[in-house]
Amino acid sequence: MLFQNGEPEALRLPLAMLLVFGGAKLMAEIFERFRQPAIVGEILAGIIIGPSVLGWMTPNELLTTLADLGVMFLLFRVGLEVKASDLMKVGGTAALVAFLGVVLPFFLGWGVMLLWGEPQVEAIFTGAAMVATSVGITAQVLASKGLLNLRASRIILAAAVIDDVLGLLVLALVSGLARGKVNVLELATTGVLALGFTLLVAKWGGRAMGRVVGRLHGKLQMQEAQFTMAMVLLFTLSVLAVYVGVAAIIGAFLAGMAVGESVGRRVHDLAHGVTELLVPFFLVGIGLHFDLHEFTAPSTLLLAFIILAAAVFSKFVGCGLGAIRLGRADAARVGVGMVPRGEVGMVVAQIGLGLGVVPKHIYGVVVFMAVATTLVAPPLLSLAFRNAQKTEGEEEVFHLG
Amino acid sequence: MLFQNGEPEALRLPLAMLLVFGGAKLMAEIFERFRQPAIVGEILAGIIIGPSVLGWMTPNELLTTLADLGVMFLLFRVGLEVKASDLMKVGGTAALVAFLGVVLPFFLGWGVMLLWGEPQVEAIFTGAAMVATSVGITAQVLASKGLLNLRASRIILAAAVIDDVLGLLVLALVSGLARGKVNVLELATTGVLALGFTLLVAKWGGRAMGRVVGRLHGKLQMQEAQFTMAMVLLFTLSVLAVYVGVAAIIGAFLAGMAVGESVGRRVHDLAHGVTELLVPFFLVGIGLHFDLHEFTAPSTLLLAFIILAAAVFSKFVGCGLGAIRLGRADAARVGVGMVPRGEVGMVVAQIGLGLGVVPKHIYGVVVFMAVATTLVAPPLLSLAFRNAQKTEGEEEVFHLG
Repeated sequence: MLFQNGEPEALRLPLAMLLVFGGAKLMAEIFERFRQPAIVGEILAGIIIGPSVLGWMTPNELLTTLADLGVMFLLFRVGLEVKASDLMKVGGTAALVAFLGVVLPFFLGWGVMLLWGEPQVEAIFTGAAMVATSVGITAQVLASKGLLNLRASRIILAAAVIDDVLGLLVLALVSGLARGKVNVLELATTGVLALGFTLLVAKWGGRAMGRVVGRLHGKLQMQEAQFTMAMVLLFTLSVLAVYVGVAAIIGAFLAGMAVGESVGRRVHDLAHGVTELLVPFFLVGIGLHFDLHEFTAPSTLLLAFIILAAAVFSKFVGCGLGAIRLGRADAARVGVGMVPRGEVGMVVAQIGLGLGVVPKHIYGVVVFMAVATTLVAPPLLSLAFRNAQKTEGEEEVFHLG
Repeated sequence: MLFQNGEPEALRLPLAMLLVFGGAKLMAEIFERFRQPAIVGEILAGIIIGPSVLGWMTPNELLTTLADLGVMFLLFRVGLEVKASDLMKVGGTAALVAFLGVVLPFFLGWGVMLLWGEPQVEAIFTGAAMVATSVGITAQVLASKGLLNLRASRIILAAAVIDDVLGLLVLALVSGLARGKVNVLELATTGVLALGFTLLVAKWGGRAMGRVVGRLHGKLQMQEAQFTMAMVLLFTLSVLAVYVGVAAIIGAFLAGMAVGESVGRRVHDLAHGVTELLVPFFLVGIGLHFDLHEFTAPSTLLLAFIILAAAVFSKFVGCGLGAIRLGRADAARVGVGMVPRGEVGMVVAQIGLGLGVVPKHIYGVVVFMAVATTLVAPPLLSLAFRNAQKTEGEEEVFHLG
């Protein structure tokens, strides 16, 4: 590792900033030149400076902090551009997309692992790790192309939020199975609480924030008062989201939607500065988790590719089927948009590793699946959205990048 | 501690963000209402949520990362607003200010501790901890009032940079004494290297960056290319600064000056977003280090106040004398501006603690001095700059806040 020993403490932060940010942007530029998605370049930068190739860095607390903050701000920024009412309108379709996109990957992953001869619990955990979509990756791609307000994009965002709640339930279920006790009442409470919080904030958050911002307008002495209020809401909803059981980034997304219509352009710009700085840490962080050395046995590598294929196929088909009534073009967009598993799949695998029910080589397979689905999704998204009309939505389309 | 045990891992980051950012801004608002400096409120927020009062938080890696990044961006932002050539013009005066502002506090601190009956090495270390000015605090106050381009402000900034180099030499000297060996040649090399790097970048950095930005203009495919270039320079110079021996934030300041004239308004805004979010972590972090419980003995408290008085008096008189030829008003401004020791004094004390030459109660006294000088400086600055004409400089005055 480049900076674990022998480097002065004062060097850690600036060196990490330089390597991660500089590496990510260099790769992004190279990828853009070859008309490939910049996001793929940034994740590859993580693989390159990570243990697989150069070995300069491994995931550590410093990087994790910046990555988590980065994805939190990314979802907040995306929320700013999206109207809650627009997501509500596509809620029915999104729920079906999310449901089928959870059920298919779970059972396919489980089945494949059983056929491969793995034990029951490991098979179930692999299925669970294939469930959750990384909304961050898809949001970043759609936002950087200015496509957030298309119907398919809205369905993807709404479905990804519901997917997070369902993924939480699946994880609670399989963790209970691994520990040998499943409390159905607790599961139901968790689900109702998480869904209730999300719907409540989505439905009433915007109106409430409009009133608060209006009432406090001009009354606060501090500079950048709107930005400060938006940040406090962002962190408050992130904390509450974790309390009710969903991911902090869902809270960040809800916060963005809640203030999106009541704050000025300035708040967008300031939040965008944070996003520009920190999103590379999120992307590089995903790549850093990947470790080629775990694939010493050829059979593990084969299994990894089979699981990858199952993960892509099952999400694409499951989510696509959920949106099929919108026509094949939009169904394909939705299907592709839900493919990336990113950091979420890794978290499930880490929990399984911690519970002692996921052995090291299966962990490697799941991480491979999570990273690879994230790498294949952006080019597929470009393809699927190639003919989409940017002005389809009634809103002005905002270019996040 | 509020989040060391029993809280889910996912809660750590959003909860820390909410407590630190929310607490800081709440206190800032209260202080602004009573026409007191917001910065003092934010530091007090750290004392309140820290071990002295509520005990919700202690300094940890997450907070340190965000605080270090915050002060790095603060100095970068300040550098953006300052012309290197303007600092060079006042270089002679600034050097005198820095020199006297290092010599007087060092010998006064040393002498007071000897009179108090402390051993030689501890006395020397206390003197060393009184040497270094925290340019971050003063810069934040001046910037938030839009005073960066006054003559006195320029002298303060230039002197603070030289002060950092001198402080480095003092620290190397006393660390050598504590270890029983002082290498004069090494000291001289360090000094020349640090000063050479700073002067070189200040003198030629702007011209070089102007050429680079001009040449790359329109050639890069990536979005926000100017911001990306500015960030890469910021992190590169921060790393180099640490390598040659000065603080990373000096590199950040030099980077800001180097790109200030060649990048557009957009870069200022994006960097400002990061500053707005993270500077509260820097300020709260200073307050968090303060622990009232270290003052169980009344004699320690008395010593702390004597050292505080010596620290304020010696910097004010030393730096004021250095600038006396500009008249008493500007001399007073410069003297007050160099008073805050902030995080720099604490770092010296921590090194002494690590070397085993600074006992716990003296460490407490030094931290008290560092925090208290930081708390008294902003109101004194407001007073000293009360009659300063904002338009004195030839530049348009920019309001950072």
